[in-house]
Amino acid sequence: MIDRPPAAPPPESSFPLKGRLMPKDVIPNDIFEQRESAARSYCRSMPERFTQARGSELQGSDGRSWIDFLAGCSSLNYGHNDPDMKAALVEHIAGDGIAHGLDLHTDVKADLLEALDRHILGPRGMDHKVMFTGPTGANAVEAAMKIARKVTGRTNIIAFTNGFHGVTLGALAATGNGYHRGGAGTTLNGVTRMPYDGFMGRDCDTTRFLEAMLADRSSGVDAPAAIILETVQGEGGLNAARPEWVQRVAELAHEHGALLIVDDIQAGCGRTGRFFSFEEMGVMPDIVTMAKSISGFGLPMALVLVKPEYDVFGPAEHNGTFRGNTHAFVTARVAIEKFWADGKFQKKLEEKAELIGGALSNIAKMVPEAKLKGRGLMQGVDVGAGALAADICARAFQKGLVIETSGSEDQVVKVLAPLTTPEATFRKGFDILRDATREALANQAQIAAE
Amino acid sequence: MIDRPPAAPPPESSFPLKGRLMPKDVIPNDIFEQRESAARSYCRSMPERFTQARGSELQGSDGRSWIDFLAGCSSLNYGHNDPDMKAALVEHIAGDGIAHGLDLHTDVKADLLEALDRHILGPRGMDHKVMFTGPTGANAVEAAMKIARKVTGRTNIIAFTNGFHGVTLGALAATGNGYHRGGAGTTLNGVTRMPYDGFMGRDCDTTRFLEAMLADRSSGVDAPAAIILETVQGEGGLNAARPEWVQRVAELAHEHGALLIVDDIQAGCGRTGRFFSFEEMGVMPDIVTMAKSISGFGLPMALVLVKPEYDVFGPAEHNGTFRGNTHAFVTARVAIEKFWADGKFQKKLEEKAELIGGALSNIAKMVPEAKLKGRGLMQGVDVGAGALAADICARAFQKGLVIETSGSEDQVVKVLAPLTTPEATFRKGFDILRDATREALANQAQIAAE
Amino acid sequence: MIDRPPAAPPPESSFPLKGRLMPKDVIPNDIFEQRESAARSYCRSMPERFTQARGSELQGSDGRSWIDFLAGCSSLNYGHNDPDMKAALVEHIAGDGIAHGLDLHTDVKADLLEALDRHILGPRGMDHKVMFTGPTGANAVEAAMKIARKVTGRTNIIAFTNGFHGVTLGALAATGNGYHRGGAGTTLNGVTRMPYDGFMGRDCDTTRFLEAMLADRSSGVDAPAAIILETVQGEGGLNAARPEWVQRVAELAHEHGALLIVDDIQAGCGRTGRFFSFEEMGVMPDIVTMAKSISGFGLPMALVLVKPEYDVFGPAEHNGTFRGNTHAFVTARVAIEKFWADGKFQKKLEEKAELIGGALSNIAKMVPEAKLKGRGLMQGVDVGAGALAADICARAFQKGLVIETSGSEDQVVKVLAPLTTPEATFRKGFDILRDATREALANQAQIAAE
Amino acid sequence: MIDRPPAAPPPESSFPLKGRLMPKDVIPNDIFEQRESAARSYCRSMPERFTQARGSELQGSDGRSWIDFLAGCSSLNYGHNDPDMKAALVEHIAGDGIAHGLDLHTDVKADLLEALDRHILGPRGMDHKVMFTGPTGANAVEAAMKIARKVTGRTNIIAFTNGFHGVTLGALAATGNGYHRGGAGTTLNGVTRMPYDGFMGRDCDTTRFLEAMLADRSSGVDAPAAIILETVQGEGGLNAARPEWVQRVAELAHEHGALLIVDDIQAGCGRTGRFFSFEEMGVMPDIVTMAKSISGFGLPMALVLVKPEYDVFGPAEHNGTFRGNTHAFVTARVAIEKFWADGKFQKKLEEKAELIGGALSNIAKMVPEAKLKGRGLMQGVDVGAGALAADICARAFQKGLVIETSGSEDQVVKVLAPLTTPEATFRKGFDILRDATREALANQAQIAAE
Repeated sequence: MIDRPPAAPPPESSFPLKGRLMPKDVIPNDIFEQRESAARSYCRSMPERFTQARGSELQGSDGRSWIDFLAGCSSLNYGHNDPDMKAALVEHIAGDGIAHGLDLHTDVKADLLEALDRHILGPRGMDHKVMFTGPTGANAVEAAMKIARKVTGRTNIIAFTNGFHGVTLGALAATGNGYHRGGAGTTLNGVTRMPYDGFMGRDCDTTRFLEAMLADRSSGVDAPAAIILETVQGEGGLNAARPEWVQRVAELAHEHGALLIVDDIQAGCGRTGRFFSFEEMGVMPDIVTMAKSISGFGLPMALVLVKPEYDVFGPAEHNGTFRGNTHAFVTARVAIEKFWADGKFQKKLEEKAELIGGALSNIAKMVPEAKLKGRGLMQGVDVGAGALAADICARAFQKGLVIETSGSEDQVVKVLAPLTTPEATFRKGFDILRDATREALANQAQIAAE
Repeated sequence: MIDRPPAAPPPESSFPLKGRLMPKDVIPNDIFEQRESAARSYCRSMPERFTQARGSELQGSDGRSWIDFLAGCSSLNYGHNDPDMKAALVEHIAGDGIAHGLDLHTDVKADLLEALDRHILGPRGMDHKVMFTGPTGANAVEAAMKIARKVTGRTNIIAFTNGFHGVTLGALAATGNGYHRGGAGTTLNGVTRMPYDGFMGRDCDTTRFLEAMLADRSSGVDAPAAIILETVQGEGGLNAARPEWVQRVAELAHEHGALLIVDDIQAGCGRTGRFFSFEEMGVMPDIVTMAKSISGFGLPMALVLVKPEYDVFGPAEHNGTFRGNTHAFVTARVAIEKFWADGKFQKKLEEKAELIGGALSNIAKMVPEAKLKGRGLMQGVDVGAGALAADICARAFQKGLVIETSGSEDQVVKVLAPLTTPEATFRKGFDILRDATREALANQAQIAAE
Repeated sequence: MIDRPPAAPPPESSFPLKGRLMPKDVIPNDIFEQRESAARSYCRSMPERFTQARGSELQGSDGRSWIDFLAGCSSLNYGHNDPDMKAALVEHIAGDGIAHGLDLHTDVKADLLEALDRHILGPRGMDHKVMFTGPTGANAVEAAMKIARKVTGRTNIIAFTNGFHGVTLGALAATGNGYHRGGAGTTLNGVTRMPYDGFMGRDCDTTRFLEAMLADRSSGVDAPAAIILETVQGEGGLNAARPEWVQRVAELAHEHGALLIVDDIQAGCGRTGRFFSFEEMGVMPDIVTMAKSISGFGLPMALVLVKPEYDVFGPAEHNGTFRGNTHAFVTARVAIEKFWADGKFQKKLEEKAELIGGALSNIAKMVPEAKLKGRGLMQGVDVGAGALAADICARAFQKGLVIETSGSEDQVVKVLAPLTTPEATFRKGFDILRDATREALANQAQIAAE
Repeated sequence: MIDRPPAAPPPESSFPLKGRLMPKDVIPNDIFEQRESAARSYCRSMPERFTQARGSELQGSDGRSWIDFLAGCSSLNYGHNDPDMKAALVEHIAGDGIAHGLDLHTDVKADLLEALDRHILGPRGMDHKVMFTGPTGANAVEAAMKIARKVTGRTNIIAFTNGFHGVTLGALAATGNGYHRGGAGTTLNGVTRMPYDGFMGRDCDTTRFLEAMLADRSSGVDAPAAIILETVQGEGGLNAARPEWVQRVAELAHEHGALLIVDDIQAGCGRTGRFFSFEEMGVMPDIVTMAKSISGFGLPMALVLVKPEYDVFGPAEHNGTFRGNTHAFVTARVAIEKFWADGKFQKKLEEKAELIGGALSNIAKMVPEAKLKGRGLMQGVDVGAGALAADICARAFQKGLVIETSGSEDQVVKVLAPLTTPEATFRKGFDILRDATREALANQAQIAAE
């Protein structure tokens, strides 16, 4: 779609440049204004009615198209409407395959489990059980936290600064974001906060602090049921932990009888260059939470991988009507077989990660004191201020690129393109991002001069 | 499918008769045994690998078929694979319609909002806003509880005995079920429990107790942010509240500055004979939670309807990657237009409810001290003991009927057939249920005699 | 003291008649205004600087004296400065007896334990261990709740409407009073509230509700660690539970594996006519909390009586610098030996209780719809409104009687005179109370007429 | 007393040398065994029945005497039975002064407030209000935490590693000690733990961590209502914070809208060499909690000093029967007038602190890797292991010295002698401590050699 000349952008002056906090919807008094809750968000900074999507591109109702560097917040790692998944899903639906099956056995669930066994878990030496939870990442995190508490008989779970694990009360207690925590309406209990890798600067090994807190019986930090972490904090600002930091955390968890939970909801499914983000880090989590791209197609699905010895839930002890989404089983199976049955896809990811790193490095050079963040195919640039990052993304959107920010001040411009994005599309996207950055910086300089 | 002769049932003795708590999977050592978590549940009492479904019937991999009186726990109110929804969904997918769009505006979301506005909310005088939450009922409940707490600045939420609202920590605090509460692994806070209608017997108006507790400033029950209730408790044993009870609760909520939340996740979407379960009860909830059948097709989707004055969330304050499931928007829109654009469908529901009531009444007469439960198309028979109910359901399954239990002791045999089930299918199903009940009672008598 | 002619009361008009909520201190800008926190309370409705006290009388700095129908909220059951306790205490102090001994063994602690053993516990068949907690009732309650939770491994504690157990966070969760709960500043967890005897009217046996909630595994009331109750709710409005109600609660506690905690802080030490308020009720609590009059002299001391099999704390697991107050050991021992070594004192209490009941009955007849409350020597009159009760107490104070209110609306005029009050003093006090009531009613009528 | 030859110690072998964890009471089957709860503690490692005490000495029922280096855990800063306090107290009691007055105004309360105003608060420029809480330190801490939460409308309170603030649920949440936290029986909420000064070694300024956590809006540390700290952690192992650390914490509290609470329960009343432990540190706490030695005589009393603008409690919003202990008012007033009306007492404290430091330094040299801890008159030696420290204290006790340990492993031998201890008595006490240390080390070496 991007090959067609894009529709002329709206005149500069009509576009909200003050950042994404107070934008206006583009079509006032429409059905969204009338009926959709004020909780809606992305649609505010990307005021368009989208209709179609293919690969790395989105198309709006006015015929314009956008390169997608957001990918459903990493839920579309294989792009929009992958033709093979699409074909399998249409065939399934057309043939009256099960659409909803609670947690009954179905042929397609068996197929998915076999694909996971053969191509994902088996080759990585993981004997983990697969638990299909309610189809949100938060639900998987809640299940994981419950399991750890049941296994250990302990309550306390250690989570990290800038971690993001969801907004239902159990998961929200583990989430660092103050805006989301403020929405809880009640106290958030049972979680102790520790500094993530790099939180106190690169020279400070924050595991020393964790170690000291756990070792001292009067530290006030109760013996933990689990330590939960993301190896790259997607929402928290693309903070990437060093392997040795993750290893040390895993050791401490083991020493203190706590389970290690890796929340791979955003960083998993190839996003960091491997299927799991923790591969080649020398750790094996006791529990892994998956969601977002696990269905391959953007369909709601979440799961928990848990070591057999910790698979302690009774039947339906943690349940939910949509635990398991049969359509998602179909596409997830295809995704695994298409992309992970051999090493070809993974190999290409390395090249793409380099491409992204290089392009972002050039953009970072334009912004004083900017920092590169992240790793693999979840990289970004910390431009120092949320307002600038928002302006860059708004200008990029005008020019045909969907891209978003992250971080505690929304100060990181984050690239989460489909892993399948062709090199040429990447280059076009980065050209737009470079232009948007240049314009936003010029605008900033002009405002400062006034 | 049911027309074909069913495969011969396995010999009686091989079937687990000891209830559903300790069944064996039918195919030991298969992929489910090997890789699926012990949290799996329905598959234990219904040991079959299902492959296809249409209308009110499910088909297994061995060619056998079942009448479905479970309907995905009320997630399939319009039956399996409704041809109109199926056609629209296949067209959407085939045409590269958006599969995953975060909370961006899409054409199909607009279409759904317009259908809700025109056919559901408008005609019922509801100016509620629609909030798409993460696609689980629990997520909608968590959002509703947060809203009430934010609106009122209070923490306490009043929930009822035998209420079921989900198993993530916030929702679980409001859920009565001890088995699920026991899985929390930490304390469940912020909820006060009150007796539901009928909890103390039909002669006791339990709102008097609620009223006294709220009126007395030293009762120890803090001023509530909300009162949350189901008008029929689906999981809690098909307890149906009387309209005057619901009205009185609504009045008390209003008098004490609390929001009224009706959790219509299981009882909504026509299940009680009206689109909303609270219609014709003379109450208008401040917040309504919907999930299960709201997509029409069994796809994961949940939403919160909230009065505009209480639509207080900031952008993404309660968020989640899968808030809004674009495929579900497509089928939900068709479901509304097909079934709710005029009064025909609703009218037929009354006849079916009568049919169900009559059939269950006959079955109840077979069981000493059995009681009819529920209303509309969510009715059942309390057979007095979980073991008997489980045996009835197990025998029914052998004979070609999928049916489940509910209640605090799993003592209620519950009929949750698709609302679209033809009369003939209903009759076949009830014939099976009658036979299963007779056999289970005979077996019980024989055991007692031994 | 009361024999001397009292100083002339201040002229009527100068006294605050608008109730006790907004009184002025009598000596503005004094050291109390300047330096004492606004949390001070009784001094507001009783604006006098007290200097001496003996028996049932208090004397102020201006030479006036008051009959004391408050008795330190039941902390002075044996009156002020009992001469025998006084002599023993002065001797102890003069002889350099231990003033503060942590929880070291002392001769006077041994003496007290022996007196408890010989005169209190032994004769009543109680093999309970004595735990000296921090010297506040709240501290004893916190210890009791911890013990029950440790014994059972459960968290939930059942408390009753209008119960009052203290204002530290653990105890406050069990306290019903909304004003005090509002001061918590955080959520109060781990307690389920049940209706006390009479809460739903005399005809409603509220144990049926408790029974139903405990029996139903999906009631949402988690299995309790303990049930805590006062047999007469002193602060809650002198609600007296019937013996059969207490028995039934005790049975339910036993059936459900919960400990029975009787909080006898206000109702114990003879206040109801027996040493323990639960005597002759046919129950034996697993834990009893004592404070207020246990020292006999009004000195801070609190203790927990716990059955040996539940004496599970490790050394100092619940500790506190002032656990055990050596001076209080001295007076407590004398109090026990003087008043409880034989049955004479208890016998007199019966007569006094009758006297109180009769006198209050006469006063109650003066007030439309007034109700007698309480039992033994903790009786009062519910006059229907807090403003009237406050006015009665204010006028009584002007006339030489110290008396206070209780109840959720402060609507109960409460008599908590020393148990040792002579009959003549009782009569004088009740004469004042009758006059004060008459005047308050006249004033009320006049205001209503205006 | 110590001048008389001590009774011969029991033969070596009969004494429990295995540390204080599993000692036997010296008189088995006595009244303490029979009736006192297993929660008793100090009496286990100091098996004696004490009868009298004067100044810095304790006497047992067998005529033996001990030098007291424990001083009621800093509750007897002016020694046992100070003659002037004793005389005033005896006069008060003999003259029928009020023994218990709830929070009524009394002459002796006025006297105390005036003494506090004139000699303590006024000269230090403190306009704080005085709130008399229940007479335990924990109760004062609970009140302080409530005040901070009410003032700010926030819940979170920041406390430090190894802090000790009491064991009632609110205070216990702020306490670090794992043994005590384990006794809670429920989750401890509303407190975030930060590293105290020196927790990560002397080179790590832990306020940097606090600063970073408070500055980052996604750190997961919610905006605090208060920061609570001890300037020297008495129970936590005599960790003494540097003035610049306390200042930085105070600044951060101010910057982030949190109240600064200094818990001066153990370190106050001259223990560090000044009346308040934070004097000359350049900070002025918003709230100060006092207990232990505030009565001067070891009587139970606690209070909260709160800046007038934060004196937000309503009347009796935080209450308790024993809030204010009239006997303690008498002795507290004498203590202030005798010791703090001029600078003489304080001057002597400097000399004594030096003496203690010197003596402990010599003892520390005997123990490999021992460290001096604390400051002023709360100093000690970290001997590296709890077993060794317990053995030293047990041997000291045998030789006539009462002394205890503190710290997360009970590894610090702690000197908390009365501030009034004469130099000669100090020297005798340290001679015993030195001998006990030598013997314990020899015993340790012998065991190691075996």
